Amino acid sequence: MDYETPQFYRVMQYAARADRDVVEMVSGSPDWDPPEGVREGLREYADADASEFQYAPSRGLRGLRERIATRHGVDADRIVVTNGAGEANHLAMTGGLDRFDGDEILLADPVYPYYAGRANFRDAEATFVPVAEDGRLDPDAVRAAASSKTAVIVVNSPNNPTGAVYDAEAMAAFAAIAEANDALLLSDEVYERFDYTGRFAAALDLDSPNVVATNAFSKSMAITGFRVGYAVFPPTGELVERATTRHMLTNVSGSRPAQYAVERAMATTEPTYYEAARERLRSRIDRFCDALEAAGATYTRPDGGFYVLARFPDFPGTFENAERLIDDAGVAGMPGAAFGEARADWLRFSLTTPRVETAAERLVSYFG
Amino acid sequence: MDYETPQFYRVMQYAARADRDVVEMVSGSPDWDPPEGVREGLREYADADASEFQYAPSRGLRGLRERIATRHGVDADRIVVTNGAGEANHLAMTGGLDRFDGDEILLADPVYPYYAGRANFRDAEATFVPVAEDGRLDPDAVRAAASSKTAVIVVNSPNNPTGAVYDAEAMAAFAAIAEANDALLLSDEVYERFDYTGRFAAALDLDSPNVVATNAFSKSMAITGFRVGYAVFPPTGELVERATTRHMLTNVSGSRPAQYAVERAMATTEPTYYEAARERLRSRIDRFCDALEAAGATYTRPDGGFYVLARFPDFPGTFENAERLIDDAGVAGMPGAAFGEARADWLRFSLTTPRVETAAERLVSYFG
Repeated sequence: MDYETPQFYRVMQYAARADRDVVEMVSGSPDWDPPEGVREGLREYADADASEFQYAPSRGLRGLRERIATRHGVDADRIVVTNGAGEANHLAMTGGLDRFDGDEILLADPVYPYYAGRANFRDAEATFVPVAEDGRLDPDAVRAAASSKTAVIVVNSPNNPTGAVYDAEAMAAFAAIAEANDALLLSDEVYERFDYTGRFAAALDLDSPNVVATNAFSKSMAITGFRVGYAVFPPTGELVERATTRHMLTNVSGSRPAQYAVERAMATTEPTYYEAARERLRSRIDRFCDALEAAGATYTRPDGGFYVLARFPDFPGTFENAERLIDDAGVAGMPGAAFGEARADWLRFSLTTPRVETAAERLVSYFG
Repeated sequence: MDYETPQFYRVMQYAARADRDVVEMVSGSPDWDPPEGVREGLREYADADASEFQYAPSRGLRGLRERIATRHGVDADRIVVTNGAGEANHLAMTGGLDRFDGDEILLADPVYPYYAGRANFRDAEATFVPVAEDGRLDPDAVRAAASSKTAVIVVNSPNNPTGAVYDAEAMAAFAAIAEANDALLLSDEVYERFDYTGRFAAALDLDSPNVVATNAFSKSMAITGFRVGYAVFPPTGELVERATTRHMLTNVSGSRPAQYAVERAMATTEPTYYEAARERLRSRIDRFCDALEAAGATYTRPDGGFYVLARFPDFPGTFENAERLIDDAGVAGMPGAAFGEARADWLRFSLTTPRVETAAERLVSYFG
């Protein structure tokens, strides 16, 4: 599997070129409006003094870092504001490989392809731990796979693509495994606002020197194009120092209009904004899972995030079948094969489209 | 010299904390207004459809890449839009180390500290070629230093900190040296709009498979905080492919509001905007060099860019002396020692302040 060039675009382009109407359920870009504070922040910034158009501090605008620190109950010195969760994960993973012995990265299978791509690109050894039937990584399986060779263990909760959400007990187990093997637990919490169970547990609550949490406003504020994310490092120094240097030498600093708008939106966005997004998705999940049921599919109902994995009878999740589904049913999903082996027979559908109802009808009619 | 944490902030912070009024001539952030098109672009974007708040293509907004391609007369497929010139230089330097044999990077002394920091961080061997008396790299000196060990040769024209501008003959010589040693010539042209001689030569005019040119809108549009830059790779494949993958796995994509605003400003900014900035700086250079003359300093009158290097009698360019100058004269310059050994006795003054006149008077009164 070539993870170095994530295959999302291949399927999206095929869908865009199709000779018929297609419901696009490939990309993970929210289809709803950002909070009004984002737009207001940009308008304000457009009229700002010229000095505000110059370099932000490398680790991010002070006010933004402080709001993030307050939200997570940590010291602002632990935070590096990054170019989205992408750079946050890059800094955390690379820092873990540099800091801890071993060159192995433990990843779930199915895996979000960018994690595996980064491991490949760094010539690290990626070891895949298959998730259990319910889509969750079993801590016992992670414990069995971890060893002194392990430098980084990656968990993502709520999970892309399985929809798994890890509770406090599971997160504590993952952190303990990292500590026992002198490794880093990288906890990617970018879908944190989309937990339908109330059981989501933040890795930072563990207060472990082996944990780095990454996050972004991309999904929560529906601004994947802004590239404002962050990593929260352990309080005692080396990881955050090294990440700060790498960030400075790679990017110098993040884009200031985007950081300014996010800072403004953090100050003004009401909890109802996030609740509304959650409710919208929950109702799409209900509708879509009903259709999967009617289509005779096996599926995992997500506890969080906005993806649904489904397996249709005699229709494995290959690129060929994804293309056939586009042409014959007018629904574009991501082949499970793009996420590894454990769900290679499945397809992933992103519920970030207002046309879930249409997609549901088409799938029932095609498979039902 | 620890290049991994560039020392600009140390001096700027000292200046900010000083007990007196200080003219800040450390940072390279323009003090003039961005083109109105930048502000207009942000205002337009603030009202855009929610879909425009999502991921830009990883290599940059199509329209922006096409405008950049047209401006340089190259195919858009050769361009990766980056998070400022910083990421462009990171991608080019790292790609050169990966693609060409050897692990040596040739840099000028004095050197822009980020180049040296990147080399250190990658564990590449940095070899410094001292500039000639006039502040220019002599192609003969570069030729003598280059060998089969050399993977990357970095030139920066107009130069930070010396103000040197390389003409077509010098650029052709640098490219020939890169070709002869199977190395990459990385030409950082971020100060291209600030050429006072008319002799500036773009490396891309050479049409060499060994040349990568980097650039950004940071200085030319006075938006160092936006982080919109780019690298132009050779037409035949491997370097641009590798950079595209690295960019995608590091940053996913650049920040879209900033790219949108720059695309808008490229469409609407008249040549008079750039001319006015050049004239403003030219008159500051005149005034400042007059003062250096009166203060008994040795100095290099810049052919381009907006920095002036000066050496005062019995006042070497140490951090201690930079701090003394802040406290005793009320002028903050960057210690030459931060740029290597060749100009360690000098201080660098950035003319990006409306208070050049005041600084000039203070220096004359302190040293004169």
